[in-house]
Amino acid sequence: MKQSALSELARNTPPPPISWLMSIALSRPNLISLAAGFTDNESLPVEEAREIVAELLEAPKAGRPALQYGTTAGDPELRRLSAKHLQQVDGASSSANYSPEQTVMTNGSQQMLYMLTEVLCDPGDIVLVEDPTYFVYLGIAQSHRLRCRGIRLQADGIDLAHLEEVLESLKKSGDIKRLKMLYLVTYFQNPTATTTSIAKKLEALKLLRRYEKAAGHPIYLLEDAAYRELQFTNRNEPSALSLGKFAERVLYAGTYSKPFATGIRVGFGILPPEITTVVLRVKGNHDFGTANLLQQLMVRAMASSRYDKHLVGLRQRYAHKAAIMVKAIKQYFPAEVQWAAPEGGLYVWARAPRSLKTGMKSKFFETCLNNDVFYVPGELCYCEDATRKKPNHEMRLSFGGASDKNIELGISRLGEVLKQSLAK
Amino acid sequence: MKQSALSELARNTPPPPISWLMSIALSRPNLISLAAGFTDNESLPVEEAREIVAELLEAPKAGRPALQYGTTAGDPELRRLSAKHLQQVDGASSSANYSPEQTVMTNGSQQMLYMLTEVLCDPGDIVLVEDPTYFVYLGIAQSHRLRCRGIRLQADGIDLAHLEEVLESLKKSGDIKRLKMLYLVTYFQNPTATTTSIAKKLEALKLLRRYEKAAGHPIYLLEDAAYRELQFTNRNEPSALSLGKFAERVLYAGTYSKPFATGIRVGFGILPPEITTVVLRVKGNHDFGTANLLQQLMVRAMASSRYDKHLVGLRQRYAHKAAIMVKAIKQYFPAEVQWAAPEGGLYVWARAPRSLKTGMKSKFFETCLNNDVFYVPGELCYCEDATRKKPNHEMRLSFGGASDKNIELGISRLGEVLKQSLAK
Repeated sequence: MKQSALSELARNTPPPPISWLMSIALSRPNLISLAAGFTDNESLPVEEAREIVAELLEAPKAGRPALQYGTTAGDPELRRLSAKHLQQVDGASSSANYSPEQTVMTNGSQQMLYMLTEVLCDPGDIVLVEDPTYFVYLGIAQSHRLRCRGIRLQADGIDLAHLEEVLESLKKSGDIKRLKMLYLVTYFQNPTATTTSIAKKLEALKLLRRYEKAAGHPIYLLEDAAYRELQFTNRNEPSALSLGKFAERVLYAGTYSKPFATGIRVGFGILPPEITTVVLRVKGNHDFGTANLLQQLMVRAMASSRYDKHLVGLRQRYAHKAAIMVKAIKQYFPAEVQWAAPEGGLYVWARAPRSLKTGMKSKFFETCLNNDVFYVPGELCYCEDATRKKPNHEMRLSFGGASDKNIELGISRLGEVLKQSLAK
Repeated sequence: MKQSALSELARNTPPPPISWLMSIALSRPNLISLAAGFTDNESLPVEEAREIVAELLEAPKAGRPALQYGTTAGDPELRRLSAKHLQQVDGASSSANYSPEQTVMTNGSQQMLYMLTEVLCDPGDIVLVEDPTYFVYLGIAQSHRLRCRGIRLQADGIDLAHLEEVLESLKKSGDIKRLKMLYLVTYFQNPTATTTSIAKKLEALKLLRRYEKAAGHPIYLLEDAAYRELQFTNRNEPSALSLGKFAERVLYAGTYSKPFATGIRVGFGILPPEITTVVLRVKGNHDFGTANLLQQLMVRAMASSRYDKHLVGLRQRYAHKAAIMVKAIKQYFPAEVQWAAPEGGLYVWARAPRSLKTGMKSKFFETCLNNDVFYVPGELCYCEDATRKKPNHEMRLSFGGASDKNIELGISRLGEVLKQSLAK
């Protein structure tokens, strides 16, 4: 037997960077990981979850629905609460774009990203992504043999002039017919911690709309709001769902995984009707519905305001950890390294001078490992895009999983290697 | 905008039969459903699940891992327990084919069926299925634009002569190069309650192996054992994993969803190494791991023998419900209708004379609805296969979800309509 029986999808799905990062971490027990996107262990809602499950399953009969199949779309009450919560957070006066009927519960928001890609994209189709973007999404795109184009990031989201330039070039080449969506991680982005302003979301939607005639079909904005609830300030940028009729093209992916518990993993999407229909069919084939026990747990967490209370503490905790990282960076990093203090999320994005390569195979990365600290190399967060050289001088630093002490120690080690490397 | 932006997958994913069946059920509140594959409500392990979660989350620190991310492959202890449990149930002396490293935890076994199809099959590829088979699998196959060929069923599993005939015809036409797997629901099959003998599993694997040279790649046996634990007798057919070196081609899909709780939805696969590798990559893109809380719940259920104890009661309960259905069928069905008493699972398969159409659009189905009883039309369980006419005179009757009283009442109503229809 020479050939394998594998599908094109399997052949185009390489090992994810995350396995490589995890195998490094496992092989070096003293390593301080600023790489993992793990959430803070100490803030996990153990007591809340215990109480809720005890309530849910207290009475033999009343507890049964939590242990029985539900519907493919998800628990009706959780769909209602999710849509309502989002409308409130957005400060939207109309509920028109926040319909429980358009809300689909998923296994984390990751499953929603996967299914949306499945229902919109054929091999060779094009997705526009932020440059850099969430590297697991790049894995989904590669697996489905999509072509990606990177849109440059500014402090308040994508560079609209660059978006227009890319759209125009796709129109000229005819490739616009293969463009299906623009994927944005709109809050405290993974990896750069950038938040997209509502003004930019509106302009992006308007721009996409202008190219729909040339495309011959709708072009969607996939708004991945995974980190939205992890904010440290009172600044609130509404989601693209708040944009009236422009929300017709918005695919919103949210989650309770990061803001409540990553071991519970309930996410959701709010989608236009024509997409809801097909996503539900595909979800039926995937698993015909996310585990009911988890969903009913989230219903009680939200309805009892335990979720809101948890968020208050969680935000304080992450703000504290972010402050520790920022303080350590100020103290230990050389001045040539650029970075910005995050306003939410789990990450600080650091840019070394271009001459300093930070990639997986770089001398610098190896030296960091030898000094028992590591990070996510920035290069992993850039799509394959022949129109620009892939940057290779950046680092994603996570303060989510590491302890306060290890954040400082890790940054000091990293600072030491940076200083040595830049001195050469 | 005339065209939609949908992918080929989305365009080839019609509404599943189950939505149609559910909408019927919802629109008629007095309807007795012998259609739903729901599990028995009264047997759900509410107390056990409450106790286990209370133990898991008792101590704030020790409870954290259950609420944190795990690994993509699943909880190591659950993988170990699952592989060991299967080896024991198979009565296998060697652990070689039951390796925790080859065990992947999923969101029910459904997700495993989906991912295996993704990693093995391109559009146009061929999957052999039982005739009839699990209709949701047919939905997955259709969605991925696979071609299916039905293999006739006998009392102890597929007709091997027919399998050989189909393989030979595929070889002659050259289509054998597109054949990727044989999909069998091996225990108390959905829909016919047939169990495949171990002798037939071995012969099927040998046959597939003989055609691999012509195919140019391995041809796998996907053994879907979803109903395995729901047995009423002491008869035990080992899984195909027990077949020594032939297990190299076996993809085993199991679940705790039906035997423990459908609201917990943890399944697993035991796979050859080359398939484990790619399934894990795809699982990373789907959701990077099944919710840890559910997995740790299952670990405790199994390790504390609560799972085994639950199974004893569950089997008695289903055996009781099956007996009620069988007794009612004997009493109320006309003699022309063929059926067999099930030895496990959730279903009785009933065959009317060929002249009596039972399909979705049949007069008979409509009359049943008007008499407030319904079933899964047999035609839904047959793949599109141009080499035979699709049978349309059968019914899948489930005793899983209905109450004892409703099973009898439903069968009596169905019997009445059968008698009237056959008298015409």
